[in-house]
Amino acid sequence: MELKLEHVATGQVRIGQTQLRNLAHRILAAAGVEEEDARIVADSLVEADARGMNSHGIIRLPVYVDRLLKGGVNARPNFLIVTESDSVTLCDAGDGLGAVATRKAMEIAIEKAKRTGIAATGVRNSNHNGEGARYVRQATSANMIGVATTNSSPIMPAWGGRDPLVGPLPIAFGIPTDGEPIILDMALGMSSRGKILYYLEKGLELPSGWLVDAEGRPTTDPSWINKGGWILPIGGHKGWGLILICEILSGILTGGAFGKELTNLYERLDHPQRNGHLLIAIDIAKFVELSTFKRRVGEYMSLIKMSRLAPGFDEILVPGEIESRNFERQQIEGITISRSVVEELLNLASRLNIAVEEAA
Amino acid sequence: MELKLEHVATGQVRIGQTQLRNLAHRILAAAGVEEEDARIVADSLVEADARGMNSHGIIRLPVYVDRLLKGGVNARPNFLIVTESDSVTLCDAGDGLGAVATRKAMEIAIEKAKRTGIAATGVRNSNHNGEGARYVRQATSANMIGVATTNSSPIMPAWGGRDPLVGPLPIAFGIPTDGEPIILDMALGMSSRGKILYYLEKGLELPSGWLVDAEGRPTTDPSWINKGGWILPIGGHKGWGLILICEILSGILTGGAFGKELTNLYERLDHPQRNGHLLIAIDIAKFVELSTFKRRVGEYMSLIKMSRLAPGFDEILVPGEIESRNFERQQIEGITISRSVVEELLNLASRLNIAVEEAA
Repeated sequence: MELKLEHVATGQVRIGQTQLRNLAHRILAAAGVEEEDARIVADSLVEADARGMNSHGIIRLPVYVDRLLKGGVNARPNFLIVTESDSVTLCDAGDGLGAVATRKAMEIAIEKAKRTGIAATGVRNSNHNGEGARYVRQATSANMIGVATTNSSPIMPAWGGRDPLVGPLPIAFGIPTDGEPIILDMALGMSSRGKILYYLEKGLELPSGWLVDAEGRPTTDPSWINKGGWILPIGGHKGWGLILICEILSGILTGGAFGKELTNLYERLDHPQRNGHLLIAIDIAKFVELSTFKRRVGEYMSLIKMSRLAPGFDEILVPGEIESRNFERQQIEGITISRSVVEELLNLASRLNIAVEEAA
Repeated sequence: MELKLEHVATGQVRIGQTQLRNLAHRILAAAGVEEEDARIVADSLVEADARGMNSHGIIRLPVYVDRLLKGGVNARPNFLIVTESDSVTLCDAGDGLGAVATRKAMEIAIEKAKRTGIAATGVRNSNHNGEGARYVRQATSANMIGVATTNSSPIMPAWGGRDPLVGPLPIAFGIPTDGEPIILDMALGMSSRGKILYYLEKGLELPSGWLVDAEGRPTTDPSWINKGGWILPIGGHKGWGLILICEILSGILTGGAFGKELTNLYERLDHPQRNGHLLIAIDIAKFVELSTFKRRVGEYMSLIKMSRLAPGFDEILVPGEIESRNFERQQIEGITISRSVVEELLNLASRLNIAVEEAA
C-alpha cells in the first residue's frame, strides 16, 4: 500500500484518515486479529487521533501489536457472557483487545436498555480499551445516555497514603443533543503524565496542586513524575473517592482484577492486563419524549454559551466540543501526528511483511 | 414534651437522638405533614446531625416549616408515577418534601433492580432532600450499590463564564461491605459555603483554588463569598463537566426544572423549589456472588488502610468512615448541636403550640 504524508511542521506530518485506518487495520490483521476486530481497533485509534486525543490514538498500536505477538493479548479471544439478567450482563473478554470487548459490551447494554430503560454491562479479563468517549458515543448514536469507566494498573496512592494503589481512572458520559453529543471523557487526576512531561521538556514550573514528590509533599517541579512522585486526584479526597468507586465498579463488581493485580500496558508484555470495564446505557425515551429532552438540553447549552465571560476566556466550551471541531477539521485536511509515530508504524509494517511505500 | 439538654461548650449543647427526633416529628406534624412522612423527614435530619453532617441536619427544619406554612412545600402532596418500564420509573413529587419523595424513589429503584439487575428512578417537582448519603444507604442495606444526585438553584457559572448557571451539585455513591458501607457523598465544588464562612469568621485566608471574586479572578479572601464571588468546581473544567451531567440527569432527563427555573431553599418561600433527583440501584448479586464482592472490597480496603502514610496524615480514611464513627459515638452520648439551633426549634414549637419544657 501507498502512504501519502504531508509535512506540516518540524517533526509533524499529516496523513489522510482512510490511509491511516487501512494501515492500522493491515498491521493488526497481520498480527493475527480477525478482520472485523482489526477494523474496530483501527477505527478506535484513528478516531481518537482525529479528535485530537492523540494519547489514545495510533501511538498505542505498537504496544498492542507487541502484546498480541508476545501473548499478553489474545488475538482470537473467546468472548463469553458469564451471566445475565434483564438489565445486566457480565462478560469475560478472554484477554482480547479492550476496544473490541468494550464495543460489544456497550452494544449489549444498548439492546437491553431499549427494552428495560437502563442496562449495565460489566467486562472482566480485558485489556487497554482506549478512549471512553468512543463507547459513550455508541449510546448517544442510539439516543441514549452512555456511561463508561475502566480500571488500570495503579500509579497513585489512596488519599493520605504513599503506596500506589489506584490508577487515575477515567469516566466518560455521553448526552445526545440535536447536534453533536455532549461528551465528557476525563481521567480523575488533576493532570496527565503526558501533560506533565510537556512541562518538563519545556523547563516550565507546574501549576500548584497537580503533583507531589515521592514522599507525598506538594511540588511544582515536573521532574518528580519520573522519580516516584504522583499526580493528585481532582478535588483531593473527593477525586480519590470517585476513583475508588470507579475501581470497585469496573474491577470488583465484574469479578475481575483490581489494583496491583492489573498489568501496566507497557510492562510484562506476555501477561494479560486484566482490565475491567463497566458500561451503562440509559434510554431517554423511557423517561421523557426524546424531542423534549433534546430541546431542553439545547436551551441549557444556549444559556451556557451566552454567559458573560470570566477573565482569560474567549468562549465557553461544552464538554466534547473541542474534539468535535478537531474531528471535523481533520476529516477534511487529514490527521496531524508526529513523524516518529509514523516511522514506528512503518517499522511495524515491515516487521509484519506489509509492503508500504511512501508516496512522493 | 420534655427536652433534656446537656451543656458541652460555649454555645453548644448535647441532646439525645430520640428526643430530637420526636421534637422534629411533632413540629412537622403540626405543620400539616402526615405522621409517616413527618417521621421520615425527622429521621433524615437527625441522622445527618448524628453523622456530623450538621449542614444537612436539624438546622434545615425551620425553613422546611416556613415553606410548608407559606405553601412552597405541599404537606400532603400527590406523589405520582408519571411513566415506568421494567427498570425505569419517573415520578412527580407533587411539590412535597424532598426527603419523602427521594426515599420512595430509591425504594422503587431497589424493587426493580431486584428483578432486572439495575434500575433508575427520576423525580421531578420535588424540594430540598438533604443528605444524599441517606438514599444510597437504602441501597447498601439491600446489598445493592446506590447512586443519588439532585439539582439545586444556581450559584456557580459555567466554566469560563460569570453568570450563575449551576449549583455545586452533589453526587453520592454507596457500596455495601461486610461492615459499614463505603459512602461517598460530596458536592462537586472545591469547598462549601459553610466552610468558607468559617474561614471568614476566623479571619483566615482561604487555600488557593477554592474561590474567585465577582469578576472570576482567583482569590484567597473568604469575604467574596458574600460579594458575588463563587466556589470553583473540583478539577476546574472537569468538575464543571460532572456538574453539567448531574444537572442533565436530575433536571432534564426527569422532565423537570433546571438552572434558574429552580428556587433557592431560602428565597420565595411560597414557591415550590422544583428540584429533580435521580436514583440508581445496582443489584450486585446479578453480577457476582455477594460474598465474593464483599470479600474483595474488604481486601481492597485492607490494602488501602495498610498503606504507608503521606506527610500530614495519621490514618487513611475510607469515604463515609468519619460519619460512621460520629454516628456510633453520638448514638450513645447524644448529638452535639449549637444552642441557637435548639432555641430556633423551641420558638418553632411554641409557634405551632407544641408544649416543650427544658428539663433541669
